[in-house]
Amino acid sequence: MTHSFTDKMNEEVLEDKTTQRLHSRLLEISEIGRTKDDGANRMGYADLELKAKDKVVKWMKAIGMSVRVDGAGNVFGRYRGKDDSKVYMAGSHVDTVPNGGHFDGVAGVLTALEIAELWYEEAYIPEYSYEVVIFTDEEGSRFGSSLTGSRSFMRLIEDAELDKFRDPDGLTADQVFENIESTREEFLNGEGPDYPIRVYGEIHIEQGKQLEQKGLSTGIVNGIAGTTRTHVVFTGTAGHAGSTPMTGRSDALVAASEFISTLPGVPKSISDSAVATVGKIEVTPNGVNVIPGKVELIVDARDIDETQQGQLIQAVRKHAENIAEQSSVSVETDMMTRVKPIPAAPEIISKMETSFKRNAHLPVHLPSGAGHDAMNIARAHPMTMLFVRSIGGISHNPAEFSHISDIRDAALILKDFFENYD
Amino acid sequence: MTHSFTDKMNEEVLEDKTTQRLHSRLLEISEIGRTKDDGANRMGYADLELKAKDKVVKWMKAIGMSVRVDGAGNVFGRYRGKDDSKVYMAGSHVDTVPNGGHFDGVAGVLTALEIAELWYEEAYIPEYSYEVVIFTDEEGSRFGSSLTGSRSFMRLIEDAELDKFRDPDGLTADQVFENIESTREEFLNGEGPDYPIRVYGEIHIEQGKQLEQKGLSTGIVNGIAGTTRTHVVFTGTAGHAGSTPMTGRSDALVAASEFISTLPGVPKSISDSAVATVGKIEVTPNGVNVIPGKVELIVDARDIDETQQGQLIQAVRKHAENIAEQSSVSVETDMMTRVKPIPAAPEIISKMETSFKRNAHLPVHLPSGAGHDAMNIARAHPMTMLFVRSIGGISHNPAEFSHISDIRDAALILKDFFENYD
Repeated sequence: MTHSFTDKMNEEVLEDKTTQRLHSRLLEISEIGRTKDDGANRMGYADLELKAKDKVVKWMKAIGMSVRVDGAGNVFGRYRGKDDSKVYMAGSHVDTVPNGGHFDGVAGVLTALEIAELWYEEAYIPEYSYEVVIFTDEEGSRFGSSLTGSRSFMRLIEDAELDKFRDPDGLTADQVFENIESTREEFLNGEGPDYPIRVYGEIHIEQGKQLEQKGLSTGIVNGIAGTTRTHVVFTGTAGHAGSTPMTGRSDALVAASEFISTLPGVPKSISDSAVATVGKIEVTPNGVNVIPGKVELIVDARDIDETQQGQLIQAVRKHAENIAEQSSVSVETDMMTRVKPIPAAPEIISKMETSFKRNAHLPVHLPSGAGHDAMNIARAHPMTMLFVRSIGGISHNPAEFSHISDIRDAALILKDFFENYD
Repeated sequence: MTHSFTDKMNEEVLEDKTTQRLHSRLLEISEIGRTKDDGANRMGYADLELKAKDKVVKWMKAIGMSVRVDGAGNVFGRYRGKDDSKVYMAGSHVDTVPNGGHFDGVAGVLTALEIAELWYEEAYIPEYSYEVVIFTDEEGSRFGSSLTGSRSFMRLIEDAELDKFRDPDGLTADQVFENIESTREEFLNGEGPDYPIRVYGEIHIEQGKQLEQKGLSTGIVNGIAGTTRTHVVFTGTAGHAGSTPMTGRSDALVAASEFISTLPGVPKSISDSAVATVGKIEVTPNGVNVIPGKVELIVDARDIDETQQGQLIQAVRKHAENIAEQSSVSVETDMMTRVKPIPAAPEIISKMETSFKRNAHLPVHLPSGAGHDAMNIARAHPMTMLFVRSIGGISHNPAEFSHISDIRDAALILKDFFENYD
């Protein structure tokens, strides 16, 4: 591995105190659970996630922030503002997928803390108090779920779901809570919905290549796409690959392939933010000398606007039906999942655009295709998100990388946003 | 099951002694290993295959045929001709795939025997002696191989392959041979290459729908297709299904799907007998929310002419390369298997056409896409094959069915063929 995370970090240019601090802190956290591939491995609720949280807590306390932990293990560090009845909140998570990267989550926590650091150095007192939050188990590696901490905070997990949780060692949620001195009751009764959040901001690596392609360090998330999953089954007639002539075949895989190869045109016909992907496919009988009789696949389709999302689902279904009509196979479609998209509020985007301009940055908009803790907060509170350029769009991988100066740019813009919000 | 094999057999119209005998013997054999789905289950080298062979041997002996068994368990029943220095040979197999049909193999053995039965009744003495052969384990269910008995007979299995044989219970080939009182040496030293075969004939159900579509009971196999297998790997870039915009994706499954959906045009451009099928596909990582980074698939392509087969392989590879060139994925192709096609000799086809005409049948030609024992015999001896209409083209399934009168038609034509061969 000639160009690992460590190599790339060594080459970073650190022009100011903020880049230097972000760089050294990112390296310190990266040592916790470093993998042999120079990646990160900090599963939610595991000791390594706790160690990373503890390190951040130590930094919080060093600038006088008061720290508390809720029933999900979420950490809140408070920096006192002029008015302590409400808070500006910013943060992300420090857990990772197995052998993941060092920026996903950590960049959001360290930038949130950097805002307080700078205010501390400047002796600046914000209008309202400011909280840096570290949500637990955002990646969901612990229970095969996702956004665990922020869903607990926003009371979006119910008893029944919790009952099903089993970690890789077979531990139940209650057993895991015991390890962090919490209980099921505390976990289920998150404070989020009633929490006096003035506005929540989250910086996250893009996990895509749009900013890289545009040559920009950071951009404004104009919505978090709502994921839909449609189960599509093509049924033809299995037959012998040798003794069945080409004419008269009813090959389910040929029809499914026609569907998949032309699917990219469907989201393009709806909007720039729409995407549709077939990632998972199952062929029956999947024998080398048998014409496939059945193909099952799942279409993952997303958009950031609910109306467009609805059009997208319809268009995907219609597309499958058209393919089946033109061939001798039949198709059935079944929508399994539809999560509401979270649009970013125009008035907040407008405030953020002003902060971009004040920092001499082009306020480009881009959708978030992936889910983030911010979308849970947005259920009850104003929310904004910034993306930071990801080199090559790589994420959930040791090769994940963002330049520290890009992360700094986002931090300074979010700082400006909070300073000017009220 | 309202219309099972038994129901269909009960409805058969039996106009003459031959249809009556074929019908009753087919029913008798069908009782050996009958499954709950009214299908057949006689694995090669299993007791049930032996029982079916024994039943045929009993019928052979009843008309004075002398019977011997070789080192592979292949059964040969001889009906004396004017000249005993050479033999006309006909036959097939009585083993089946698990829960298979009652016609695949058995139809060939019973028609071969029926020819001797009719000669016996007519007191007809053929020019040369006539042997009815029952090849062992044609389906290869015992060792996950295929054409076991006829390959042993023709010395097409070597020590090294035999070493790898393991049956579903983990038995080695040697252990299985012990059960049939044979040895590895006897198995490896088949007599086939030096056997004085004048001509070999095999009747088999079509396992396709061409005769049904043409409204004909039987047809002449004009060649046995040579199977080729090409391993094709499309490599793109895995990415997050949500955060990667549609433009700029390098989706290996979209490219593979383009390949598969347009593949049917490739064999059509080569010949009427060419076929190409993708039956097996593996997507990596096959995650519902991940753009596939790699797709591996196997193209099973066949033709009955070696030149056309070569053109087909080239065209399949070129097709894959064209798809890759037009997209942002790369492709690698690797030919894993190429079995030579076995064309039917024109002079034998011509003799068979005369037999068809003498029996007032249209001498239609059709290729065999699947392999049969006959293709092994054809390595050293003249060979002819007839197909019998398969209802719905269904095979390897309890629903497999051919009308007894269609089987009779083929038997009478093959009888005429042997009577007029010299």
